[in-house]
Amino acid sequence: MTQTPPSDRTRVRRAHERARYDRPSLDAILDAGLLCHVGYVIDGAPYVTPTLYWRDGDRVYWHGSSASRMLRAVDGAEVCVTVSHLDGLVLARSGFHHSVNYRSVMLFGRAAMVDDTAELEAQLELFMEQILPGRWAELRPPTVQEIKGTALLSMAIDEASAKVRTGPPVDDEEDYDWPVWAGLLPVRTVVDAPEPCPRLDPAIAVPANVAGFRLD
Amino acid sequence: MTQTPPSDRTRVRRAHERARYDRPSLDAILDAGLLCHVGYVIDGAPYVTPTLYWRDGDRVYWHGSSASRMLRAVDGAEVCVTVSHLDGLVLARSGFHHSVNYRSVMLFGRAAMVDDTAELEAQLELFMEQILPGRWAELRPPTVQEIKGTALLSMAIDEASAKVRTGPPVDDEEDYDWPVWAGLLPVRTVVDAPEPCPRLDPAIAVPANVAGFRLD
Repeated sequence: MTQTPPSDRTRVRRAHERARYDRPSLDAILDAGLLCHVGYVIDGAPYVTPTLYWRDGDRVYWHGSSASRMLRAVDGAEVCVTVSHLDGLVLARSGFHHSVNYRSVMLFGRAAMVDDTAELEAQLELFMEQILPGRWAELRPPTVQEIKGTALLSMAIDEASAKVRTGPPVDDEEDYDWPVWAGLLPVRTVVDAPEPCPRLDPAIAVPANVAGFRLD
Repeated sequence: MTQTPPSDRTRVRRAHERARYDRPSLDAILDAGLLCHVGYVIDGAPYVTPTLYWRDGDRVYWHGSSASRMLRAVDGAEVCVTVSHLDGLVLARSGFHHSVNYRSVMLFGRAAMVDDTAELEAQLELFMEQILPGRWAELRPPTVQEIKGTALLSMAIDEASAKVRTGPPVDDEEDYDWPVWAGLLPVRTVVDAPEPCPRLDPAIAVPANVAGFRLD
């Protein structure tokens, strides 16, 4: 695991803001999210596409339509996959020391299309199982056309960087007595009550895996 | 306003998922967020850095340390600024039709450093005012060194694309009777109760702008 992102965050190491490189820290940040931002280059220009992702051991995966220009563009190409969680606003006594609490990971490497159909199906099932255990087996099974229409991209977790800020504001020592409220505004992503499809048979109750889904 | 992102999302237009290009739609998505993902290219390789942003009219802004490699790398360079809001999981009767509800914007263009100190200060104040009206005036004022240590980047809202998916799952007609729960799991970002800094004078109560801060 090496560190290359050109971010100033890696230059300043304060008490509450630091880089973490160990795999358990990386994995915890990756596993807490659903949405990543995939960066890639076409004709020298940068693109950032939001997409769902999941982790299986030492690799991350994302998928989409086989016709996707993004997925075809990144096959074999260098990508940067970034996952970010905003955990709060940090309100200090000076504008300069305002900040946010967050957890983020940047993964660098080459993406590769997964061509093996069995592996593709197994990964789609794993993705569903991680979110809603048991649901895959209850669904109308995928058709050959649907599998053919799905592209799966994968990237090794190798060159990576995690950054985390936690804790209260850190002000200049002489500012702590400044007469303004200072502290944290915690931010959290919540899941609200399930909303049945208007065409759902009313006899079908919300199952435990759906009712129990949480994002934090 | 033109459309160039190489995303399959722009190819498939379903009832509940479509591209939007009008400025009010773009601005509403931009104004609902705090965190963007800035994509840029260094030596041909993509990087995606999460950072706070704000909008002032026809431009978006983000800032950081003057020593930031990211900020220096993007000055005058092509960037892609992506803002994404995850609004829910869409649970269909087949794995293939599972989706997410979301709002996202991709902005394309060249970023430029704002060198004018007065403009820089005015933008930092605007940023704070948009989040916590009235707070800027209550803070310990910025020092010359702090302003010198802050870099401000700006980009015109010009070439852009917004994508929105809303509503219930859209299944194949023959699947609607499949005996599995289908519907939405709404996702929302909430702000919890303010947590005072441990070194805050207990006589300073939570002000209305802090208590009233919301992200949705």
